[in-house]
Order: sequence, then C-alpha cells, then structure tokens
Amino acid sequence: MSNWRLPEYFSDVLPREAAVIEHLRRACLDTAKGYGYALVMPPLLEFVDSLLSGTGQDLDLQTFKLVDQLSGRTLGLRADMTPQAARIDSHLLNQEGVTRVCYCGSAVRTHPEGVHASREIQQFGAELYGHAGLEADLEVQCLALDCLRLAGVQQAALDLADNRIVRGVLSGMLLGPEDMVAILDALANKDAGELRLLTRDCTAAQRAAILALPELYGDADVLHEARRTLPQHALILQALDDLSALAAHHRQQGSQVQIDLADMRGYRYHSGVIFSVYARGYANAVARGGRYDEVGASFGRPRAATGFSMDLREVAGFATAPQPGSPIVAEWTTAPGLADAVADLRQRGETVVQLPSGQAHDVRTFPRQLVLRAGRWQVEDRSGSSQV
Amino acid sequence: MSNWRLPEYFSDVLPREAAVIEHLRRACLDTAKGYGYALVMPPLLEFVDSLLSGTGQDLDLQTFKLVDQLSGRTLGLRADMTPQAARIDSHLLNQEGVTRVCYCGSAVRTHPEGVHASREIQQFGAELYGHAGLEADLEVQCLALDCLRLAGVQQAALDLADNRIVRGVLSGMLLGPEDMVAILDALANKDAGELRLLTRDCTAAQRAAILALPELYGDADVLHEARRTLPQHALILQALDDLSALAAHHRQQGSQVQIDLADMRGYRYHSGVIFSVYARGYANAVARGGRYDEVGASFGRPRAATGFSMDLREVAGFATAPQPGSPIVAEWTTAPGLADAVADLRQRGETVVQLPSGQAHDVRTFPRQLVLRAGRWQVEDRSGSSQV
Repeated sequence: MSNWRLPEYFSDVLPREAAVIEHLRRACLDTAKGYGYALVMPPLLEFVDSLLSGTGQDLDLQTFKLVDQLSGRTLGLRADMTPQAARIDSHLLNQEGVTRVCYCGSAVRTHPEGVHASREIQQFGAELYGHAGLEADLEVQCLALDCLRLAGVQQAALDLADNRIVRGVLSGMLLGPEDMVAILDALANKDAGELRLLTRDCTAAQRAAILALPELYGDADVLHEARRTLPQHALILQALDDLSALAAHHRQQGSQVQIDLADMRGYRYHSGVIFSVYARGYANAVARGGRYDEVGASFGRPRAATGFSMDLREVAGFATAPQPGSPIVAEWTTAPGLADAVADLRQRGETVVQLPSGQAHDVRTFPRQLVLRAGRWQVEDRSGSSQV
Repeated sequence: MSNWRLPEYFSDVLPREAAVIEHLRRACLDTAKGYGYALVMPPLLEFVDSLLSGTGQDLDLQTFKLVDQLSGRTLGLRADMTPQAARIDSHLLNQEGVTRVCYCGSAVRTHPEGVHASREIQQFGAELYGHAGLEADLEVQCLALDCLRLAGVQQAALDLADNRIVRGVLSGMLLGPEDMVAILDALANKDAGELRLLTRDCTAAQRAAILALPELYGDADVLHEARRTLPQHALILQALDDLSALAAHHRQQGSQVQIDLADMRGYRYHSGVIFSVYARGYANAVARGGRYDEVGASFGRPRAATGFSMDLREVAGFATAPQPGSPIVAEWTTAPGLADAVADLRQRGETVVQLPSGQAHDVRTFPRQLVLRAGRWQVEDRSGSSQV
C-alpha cells in the first residue's frame, strides 16, 4: 500500500509552509496592485503551439504534454506563466500605451532545476508592456525589491547584466551556430580555458573582448573597466549607459548592486537589461527578470516588454511571516449564547476551534479557551485568568 | 496566425474577474481559518493510482493523464482536490482526534460539466476529519454559508439530503448492479414512469418506498411524510433524525432549508448527510458537500470525514466584490521628492501608476493625479481640486 507516495520532486505544502506562501502571495499581489499591475489568471493548459510560441527549446523540454480529448490536439501544462502574460497583453487587453499585469499560480516542469528543487513552483510575476524606456526596467526592479522586502528580505542584492553586451561583442564574428552555443556556455561557466580554445580563429580584438567578459564582474567600477576594454559598438555603449543609470539609482535608494557582464541567462529570450535578486545566505537568485521585447511578436504584436518572476515556495524558505494569533478552543454544544459568542470572536479575526465533548486531551493543546462565567462567555488563558 | 486561441472551455481570467476571484479566495480562506481550518497545498500532479484512490469511474474519466519522464509512470492532473486532502489527513498530518484542513487551487477536467462551464475550476474547499457526530456536518454547512455570505450571497438556500435513505430503501432488494444503476439514475431524474417499470418485480412495500422518494422534496414537512411512508429501517430512521436536527438548527439561524430525499449525487462516494447551497436566481448549486467516511480507507486510515467545496470562478459570476479605489496617475521622472511621495501613497494602500512623458492621452483616463504644487507633491482630482 503506497497510495500516499508522490512522484519525485512533488510534495504537499503543509499548514505551516502554506500559511507563509499565502502571506507572500497577498503581500506580492497587493504591492503590485499599488504599482498599477492588474491581476490576470491564464489557464493551466494551452495548445503547445501557443504556450511555447516565441520561447526556446529549454521550455519545450520542461513542458508536460497531454492530449485534449475534445480537439485531439496536444496540450501543454504551463512551465512558465510569462509567455501567457505576453499573449494576454497582445490579444486580450490589446491596450494602447503601457499595460501592466501580474499573476500568481502553479507552474510545473518535467524535470527539477536542482537537487532540492520542486517540479511545481508557485510563480508570482509582474510584466510591463509598451514602454522601451529605462523607467520601465527601473520600475520592475523596484517592484521586485519591494516584494522581497515584504517577505522579510531586507538586504537584497541586485545583480545587473545586459544581453546586448554579448550580442555586441559577438556581432561581426563569423561563427556557426554550434560555436556560438559553445561560446555562450563557456561564458556562462566563466571557463577561460575553453574560451581561449574557442576563439583561436578570431581577431585579436574580438578575442580580447570575449576573454574580458568573465572578468567584468563586481561593483559599479566594472562599468568603467568595460568602457575601456570592450569594442565601441553602439549596442554595447547603450547597454553600459543604461546599466550605469540603473546602478546609480539603486545605490541612491540604498540597495546593494553588482554587475555581471558575462551573465548569459535567457540569451535567446531576453533583449536588453536583465537582473537577478539575491537574498543574504542563499546561493540561488530568488527573483529573476529583464527585458524581452521580441516575445510579443509571435502573437502578432511586437511590444516592448520587461518584467520579473519568483517562486514563492522558494522565497517561503527564508521569508519571515507574521506569527498567527493563538487559537481559542470552545465546546461544540448547543449551549445558549455559545454560537453567537463564537461567531463574534471569528468576526474579530480570532480562530475559534470547537471540539467534541470527551476530547479533553485536545483541549490541553490550546492556550486559550471560551468558557461560561456568571452567564457570560469569555476567553480565558488555560491557566485560568480572563482575557476578554 | 492563431497562437492566441485557447482550447475549448479554457479561458483567461482577465483583471476585472480576477480581482473578484482573489477577493473571494481571501474571504473564504480567512473565514475557514477563523473556524480553525489549516491551509494545505497538494500538488497539481500525482500518480493516478493515488489521485483516484477511493474515487469512482467518473473522476477517472474527468482526469487528464500524462507520462512522468522521471519514473515512466502515469500521472494525473487533479480534477478534484478533496481526495488529496483525505490523503494528507491520513498520512502527513496523521493527527489524533479532529483535523480540519482547507485548500484553494486549480483543478482541471477533461470535459466541461455544462455548456457554459470551464474545464478549469478554482476550487475552494474545507474538510473535517475524525468526528462522526452531527456537530461536524453542521459546522461545515455553517462554514459554507458563511463563505457565501462574504461573497455577497445573502439569501443562500440549503438543500439537505442523505444517502443512507436510498441505501436503506434498496437494502434487502435482490438487484443486479445494472438494475441498481438504472434505479439510481431514474431516481436522480425523478422519472416515475421508469421507476414503475424497474420495480415491477419488487414487493409492494419496496415499490411504494422507491416510488415515494421523488415526491419527498420540499420544506421540512417532508421529513414527517418520510417517517410515515418509508420502511422503519435503522439507517433511514437515523438519517431522518439527523436531517430534522440540522434543518431545525439552520431554520433557527434564519437560513432557508429544503429537503430532497431523492438526491442521488455522489451515491458511491458519500456515506451520510449531503448538502448543496443555492444562490437566488442561479440554477446550479454553488457549493456542494457531505459526509464521506469511507474515502480515507483507501489510504490505509479509515476516518470519519465531512466537507464541502465550491468553484470560485462560478461564485464570482454573481458575487458582489468591494469596488477598487480609483488609481492615481503620476509622472515617471526623477523629479526631487516624487519617488518618496509615490512610495508613501502606495504604503497607504493607494494605486499609483507612473506614465512616461508624452502619454497625455493615458493621463486623461485617470480620475486623480499626483502634481507638484508650491513645492509639495499632492493628489488632485483631474478637475483640479486638491484631495490630499
């Protein structure tokens, strides 16, 4: 009898953790609402063509497929809600000017992304469409930091990068697709030996630029260094200007900022500034985002777009949530006035648990009790002193 | 280009409806918490053996199947969260005495349950384990009514039924499984002609009892009628006593109660009192629940169990939600003091939307605006009068 076993990397979220996740969900959605982000709820299942439209092979492999009995077509169980939000912006809201949406729900992957990861995440995200300016990047970064602050992550560190820099460095190089992938992988791994091997046939200037990238990591001084080392390509200069402006703003707000110009995350998907937020004492990024201006095109409406998302189950692992009030125990009888007294306490936000008679064992686990004293129901500490 | 099309009976929930559903979610979870129900979050996918354990063929047909690449085994996408809650009670919480859990999440069905139904529901539910007494049935019914009251359903009507009555009437009759199914179907459809045909070979007393059931529908007087008409079987007498006590309590609380002794819903699953809640002007039940003492047995721990669930998307169709406050528009510049003024308003629960310069068209759609007057940022009606 093993009916209670779950598939690997799936688990139940039990009351203590579920309460923290629900707290985070509300805090994040309320914060996003304060910035004007409207909540949308895309479906769990879509036709795969639509769900994977404009995304790469990685997401395809991470997406569970199943057959729709009504249409006979293949459906995908969403592994990421971001492309769904882009579809909603393109076709359903279809607004002129700037659109802001946020979302929070389950997304499921065929494979875990680490040994301790869950295949089901609780993805919260926010996306801003229709504005290519730096204000939009700044806004989503500030929103991500605000959401994490509410989760109790006071000293979040922001890592900034920009895909335009690698694009600028690689532009004009005659590379086959395989070599391109190999270089991107080596950059992601900061593997200098491999990079030296792969750039044997490049010009000295190109080679120097590629080999410099893995070293361009650290505080904002890295940007000065990059201006000296990297080619004077328009994409690169614009990216460095944008990163300088963003870093200056965040430093002014008291946030800790790092630059990592060899960050290759989402190279095919992202088209400009990208960022990750780290919490102290936690190795993985807890929020990731950036600009992806080209994704809407696959739905027939190319739009400027930037946003971020995070897994609330992951954040719950180190979030500080408010302590719940201690519950009150009451008897489960039809005694006069009891039902009204219980309803009144619940109305005031208290948790009142009614227990069947004869469960004295359970009563002892509650710190407070509803008892009848001189004709009035009142809450007493189990030690005996009256509270209400 | 039809990448934006969704499979039939799936749809995006757009901002207006999403805000109502989120409001209902919080109201229901907070109400359940006040009763002592702890939130759990079971996974979207489980091995089918576990997911369908102790449930009938109907749920099997309604469950999407897919292949787990890690184990090679078949997984099911949950179509109902109730059996998952029973599994959690049986194995993970494994508490002595009474356990109360609630849940809220997506569940997906292979086929819609009506022409206007969605195949993805937002299921909220609450379950009470470990108490066979009537207090437990009463509590979950009161909780369901309380949740609907918060959704703005003031005049909810409660329909009570009890599967023990049909079990009592059919007990001692020598019926093959096909005849049994045919009689249950005819009872569900209140098809007197078909029932007369199917009971040709029964004794006169048995036939009279079966033919009486479809008539035993209406207010609490039906219970007196049932005591006269139905056989004096122990199961039937206990059920009638329980229904009388529940109906009396709800009438005393001012709730409208109906009795329907031919209600055949979940005959194989439910084991005692069952109930449905109806909202005025809405044909389908909006919440359904009842006792299902036998389900935990399939997880190796038979437990008394009763609970209910509802689809928050359905409830949102007629719920009255609080009107959101009108948003404030602000410029998107680095003007001194602006960022602090915006942060302060958001802290106080206001929605402040920042717009890029040159989008004067968009500004006109906002009723309020943050403007600099005599060196201070303040909120003004777009007509010009100051508000803050």
